[in-house]
Amino acid sequence: MYPVMVGLKERQVVRFALVGIGRAGTLHAECIVGNPDAELVYVCSRSRQTADTFAATYSARVARNIDEVLTDKSIDAILIASSTETHIEYMRAAVRAKKAILCEKPIGLDFAAVESFRNEIAETGAVIQIGFNRRFDPSHAAIHEAVRSGSIGQPEVVIVTSRDPSPESRDYHASSGGIFLDMTIHDFDMVRFILGEDPIEVYATGSVMVDPMFAEIGDLDTAMTVLKTASGALAHINNSRRASYGADRRIEAFGSAGMIQSLNMRPSLQERFNRGNTGLQVPFISDYTIRYREAFDRQLSAFISAVRGGGPLRVTFEDGRRAQILANHALNSLLSGRPEKVDYS
Amino acid sequence: MYPVMVGLKERQVVRFALVGIGRAGTLHAECIVGNPDAELVYVCSRSRQTADTFAATYSARVARNIDEVLTDKSIDAILIASSTETHIEYMRAAVRAKKAILCEKPIGLDFAAVESFRNEIAETGAVIQIGFNRRFDPSHAAIHEAVRSGSIGQPEVVIVTSRDPSPESRDYHASSGGIFLDMTIHDFDMVRFILGEDPIEVYATGSVMVDPMFAEIGDLDTAMTVLKTASGALAHINNSRRASYGADRRIEAFGSAGMIQSLNMRPSLQERFNRGNTGLQVPFISDYTIRYREAFDRQLSAFISAVRGGGPLRVTFEDGRRAQILANHALNSLLSGRPEKVDYS
Amino acid sequence: MYPVMVGLKERQVVRFALVGIGRAGTLHAECIVGNPDAELVYVCSRSRQTADTFAATYSARVARNIDEVLTDKSIDAILIASSTETHIEYMRAAVRAKKAILCEKPIGLDFAAVESFRNEIAETGAVIQIGFNRRFDPSHAAIHEAVRSGSIGQPEVVIVTSRDPSPESRDYHASSGGIFLDMTIHDFDMVRFILGEDPIEVYATGSVMVDPMFAEIGDLDTAMTVLKTASGALAHINNSRRASYGADRRIEAFGSAGMIQSLNMRPSLQERFNRGNTGLQVPFISDYTIRYREAFDRQLSAFISAVRGGGPLRVTFEDGRRAQILANHALNSLLSGRPEKVDYS
Amino acid sequence: MYPVMVGLKERQVVRFALVGIGRAGTLHAECIVGNPDAELVYVCSRSRQTADTFAATYSARVARNIDEVLTDKSIDAILIASSTETHIEYMRAAVRAKKAILCEKPIGLDFAAVESFRNEIAETGAVIQIGFNRRFDPSHAAIHEAVRSGSIGQPEVVIVTSRDPSPESRDYHASSGGIFLDMTIHDFDMVRFILGEDPIEVYATGSVMVDPMFAEIGDLDTAMTVLKTASGALAHINNSRRASYGADRRIEAFGSAGMIQSLNMRPSLQERFNRGNTGLQVPFISDYTIRYREAFDRQLSAFISAVRGGGPLRVTFEDGRRAQILANHALNSLLSGRPEKVDYS
Repeated sequence: MYPVMVGLKERQVVRFALVGIGRAGTLHAECIVGNPDAELVYVCSRSRQTADTFAATYSARVARNIDEVLTDKSIDAILIASSTETHIEYMRAAVRAKKAILCEKPIGLDFAAVESFRNEIAETGAVIQIGFNRRFDPSHAAIHEAVRSGSIGQPEVVIVTSRDPSPESRDYHASSGGIFLDMTIHDFDMVRFILGEDPIEVYATGSVMVDPMFAEIGDLDTAMTVLKTASGALAHINNSRRASYGADRRIEAFGSAGMIQSLNMRPSLQERFNRGNTGLQVPFISDYTIRYREAFDRQLSAFISAVRGGGPLRVTFEDGRRAQILANHALNSLLSGRPEKVDYS
Repeated sequence: MYPVMVGLKERQVVRFALVGIGRAGTLHAECIVGNPDAELVYVCSRSRQTADTFAATYSARVARNIDEVLTDKSIDAILIASSTETHIEYMRAAVRAKKAILCEKPIGLDFAAVESFRNEIAETGAVIQIGFNRRFDPSHAAIHEAVRSGSIGQPEVVIVTSRDPSPESRDYHASSGGIFLDMTIHDFDMVRFILGEDPIEVYATGSVMVDPMFAEIGDLDTAMTVLKTASGALAHINNSRRASYGADRRIEAFGSAGMIQSLNMRPSLQERFNRGNTGLQVPFISDYTIRYREAFDRQLSAFISAVRGGGPLRVTFEDGRRAQILANHALNSLLSGRPEKVDYS
Repeated sequence: MYPVMVGLKERQVVRFALVGIGRAGTLHAECIVGNPDAELVYVCSRSRQTADTFAATYSARVARNIDEVLTDKSIDAILIASSTETHIEYMRAAVRAKKAILCEKPIGLDFAAVESFRNEIAETGAVIQIGFNRRFDPSHAAIHEAVRSGSIGQPEVVIVTSRDPSPESRDYHASSGGIFLDMTIHDFDMVRFILGEDPIEVYATGSVMVDPMFAEIGDLDTAMTVLKTASGALAHINNSRRASYGADRRIEAFGSAGMIQSLNMRPSLQERFNRGNTGLQVPFISDYTIRYREAFDRQLSAFISAVRGGGPLRVTFEDGRRAQILANHALNSLLSGRPEKVDYS
Repeated sequence: MYPVMVGLKERQVVRFALVGIGRAGTLHAECIVGNPDAELVYVCSRSRQTADTFAATYSARVARNIDEVLTDKSIDAILIASSTETHIEYMRAAVRAKKAILCEKPIGLDFAAVESFRNEIAETGAVIQIGFNRRFDPSHAAIHEAVRSGSIGQPEVVIVTSRDPSPESRDYHASSGGIFLDMTIHDFDMVRFILGEDPIEVYATGSVMVDPMFAEIGDLDTAMTVLKTASGALAHINNSRRASYGADRRIEAFGSAGMIQSLNMRPSLQERFNRGNTGLQVPFISDYTIRYREAFDRQLSAFISAVRGGGPLRVTFEDGRRAQILANHALNSLLSGRPEKVDYS
């Protein structure tokens, strides 16, 4: 077993270093600070000034560099929320230092490097959880559980609707690896999570409808994907980089004996009735602060539980790799204009 | 047994005369014409000219007078939808002529006349169904059935919300007998139907909020009633003569093991999502043409079934009388400013 | 102009002959009988005995053969609801006899015959409406109208979920032309109707999940289709031949400024609350008798209006042909395993 | 102005002592600890042992007695969540010590003592906020705002449904002052808050349906109240001490131009469809930990803001007194069996 867990007593607080303090890093910091079983000790960032403010807000120390963190024996876990191209480098160092790792998706931009890193860690017992937070959303998890327990019979169809409120910056998208690797990767993971079966074929198409910027950087903002498994189950994902009414995250699983949906949040409980209309006020919802806030908390708790030896990792490196393989094949399908057989070997 | 039913074979068409051709009469005519087991033979109205057009529309004959109808042996049933003050007179004649009767609510404006008529028909076996169409609304009926079958446990509370889309004419209201006898009477019947128990106390209050006309004619347009049964169950009714968003008819039954609601119709299936809002378009609904259209059809079918001897009357003269007694006591409560014990004897 | 319309006065009743008395034919008969502007004069069927009973029910005559109908000058319109392989033959005869035609989808099984017939009627001014009844469903039509009027901005994505309650007989499916031509054709028409733009590429895949019978007859029971238009708009259709909870017909249109959905019917208005659960009772809904009953009525009214010269045909022969072209390309895509460019010429 | 506020700078942390550590006290402690503008310094309780554990959990000190707290100059505010009969005694001491006060409802059990205390503090500028947390519930607050801004026109009817998940202990109820003072008092406040007008007449009735224990202690578990204002607006409140499906808190405001409802929370986003049924899973909701959790947080923030001088008190002592007057009159009405005129003088 992985040695870092040996020393952790059942209810010992897990001491974290956070690498990366952008939007995802900020949310992770809030989760750590709000979790009685976790402590945010270090914050690492390339931008020293931002890091100072950030660390002050969360009562953490700014690490001079990653080595300071990794050589600190009191640190149990590294939460990696830095830009994607740095993930593998930081994970490699953390594995060597025998720290447990919670790393944001995707694993990396260069798939050859992902495969190479996979080989390195094959026999090390490294504790790496990939940041597919949506598995921890109570409603999405309920669909997974409903399918697993047979309550909709044999699963036949999964429909995932996943639309961002609005695009990020041009820089973000230009270095994101494209819509399939950056955004749809969550939905690929949802399909695998809910069907409990790996897609063997993927077809993807798309357009630039939201902002010509996406065409300029060789990306899409509107996409559709169709996947098929060995059992014949079919999955569809539709993505957009802009939804005027806020983050739209719905999943529907349809089977031989029923259907179950995970719907969007409705933070307001008011319903209004006027002449010719009735309305339910739905304030614009963001993913980070509202929709998946609880999922991020639960993701952290699950990681802490695994680090303490209290249970298996709920999202593995291999889960991260397979979703990324699907993203790669989706991109290939887009480029080739035809469906692609999926090779996970 | 009542002789009129002797001659009717199991699937024989029931031949109707319709008395009164206002809004309710029009809806009844449509129900008769659309019912394969019914035939509209005669139409009676004080206004000869209107009757001609009406009869032509529904391929019926205009009766010269009520006697022509009552002496026609081929007529099985009289549907009375004329103004309330004529109900008892027509019923009396129809009972003598041994016709089955479906009479609109309320039985009459003068309760002494109601009691007197009740005595007259006590031993005659007269077939009289009172027009509490809401008992035949599938959703309201489902609440009745849910309570009866114990699915909410012991019933403890009933809440009835009943709001008209808009007031009728001044003339209508001035001769209606007031809000409790004209409008709330339906809700009193719903409380009895759903609880399966008679209220023993009633308190009523109200205001004129919608139109000063109601004050001028000594009526209310906004009212609240509270009823209590011997078992301790409580019921509340709230009424208004105007709902800007259309007819509002909801019933909620709450018991020891659960709650069940009969909600408003939503004729539209569109849901719209825009920035900061989501709406379900609800075209303005009227009672007669939309909300209770199906209830009127089912009411007629139940009456036909009883006339043919296929089952008991689903709404009896006594049901009509008891709801009217509650309306009387509600008015007394309003006038006395205190709750009234209910006397059904 | 098409001569048959010349003689019809504005409010003249349209006299129909109905060809085919299966499930669709029965529904059409009910629509005609219930429509004050229509009269069902003749019924034609290969099965004389069934036709006698059918005609008696709807107070129509049984035609000895199609010629009797077509030579009867008093007949204005032929409603063709016979089996698909007979559609063109009956339409050809009806066009020659200068009768207006309302023909069920698809136009025919053999696309070469469709094209040939198209050439024949090119200059004749034939009045042919194809039976895409869903265009007349109030909620689907509202989506079309919302998109057309710009209320969701530029349309970008359409999602159609279309699931039958349960499979038909083996014979039905074996002669249906397959899922794309028999079932998805309605959804192809919905995509065209809502986007107001023709798809230029189609990709389809599918499985046999519901019943091995479909594999035996070379058909699918579970299918997914992705379509793309010249503007870049994307559409997805998912189909199943079995939905345990009843007919599932939903359409979602997503655009730059909002989203609109046409949801499933909820015929029940009851909501139940118990420990740990709240439920809305939804009796199993069938397409023919509940979901699209109103659409069939409105389809007939629109046809009558066009026959009387009161307006253009709302669904043209070309609409039927184009949806069929999409079905053909979907099948080709399934067989080739890759997306197909669509050729409408 | 009240001196305690003089020394508080705009963003200075407000230092709290919490008196009473039962269920409400626990929730208040969590709100204080989670609020960056508040600090929980002292905890006071008659039970020393419980207080030690409690204080340790929230990193606070246990006060030897209330005097230790009140003589500590560093303490800004006292949060009183002790049993009702102690409220006035603690408030009196806190007012003398010039501490700001947030006191749970009701003000006291003995109304004469309430009036006497009112006279004492009349000229002192005491800062006292009464714990009507529901005013801070976002959905209830939205109804208040909708009515205030005229979006439903002239308010005519308010319906409040308020049902507890289950009774408390016999001891709790025996010393609670009865259902109107303990439970309905929140709903009386809601009626005042939403209508923006004081009721001038109240009628109440009730039963023991849930547990005979209530009869034994001279209380009710099921109640209905009707209130009327000078403008003619009517309000209805229905209460039960047990709802099998969890806390049920709904408010409906109906006016001349529309209707608005504040509905129950639905913490689950799953919808399930099976043969003949569709259901939305609703885990049992409790008031304290789920339904009004956010309201308690916002209540505290509003209090902190007022203490810092940033705004007026959002719930005043007079609000607490007037709701209590309504509760008194409701009890009188129950006892007298007739409506009571309300005297606020």
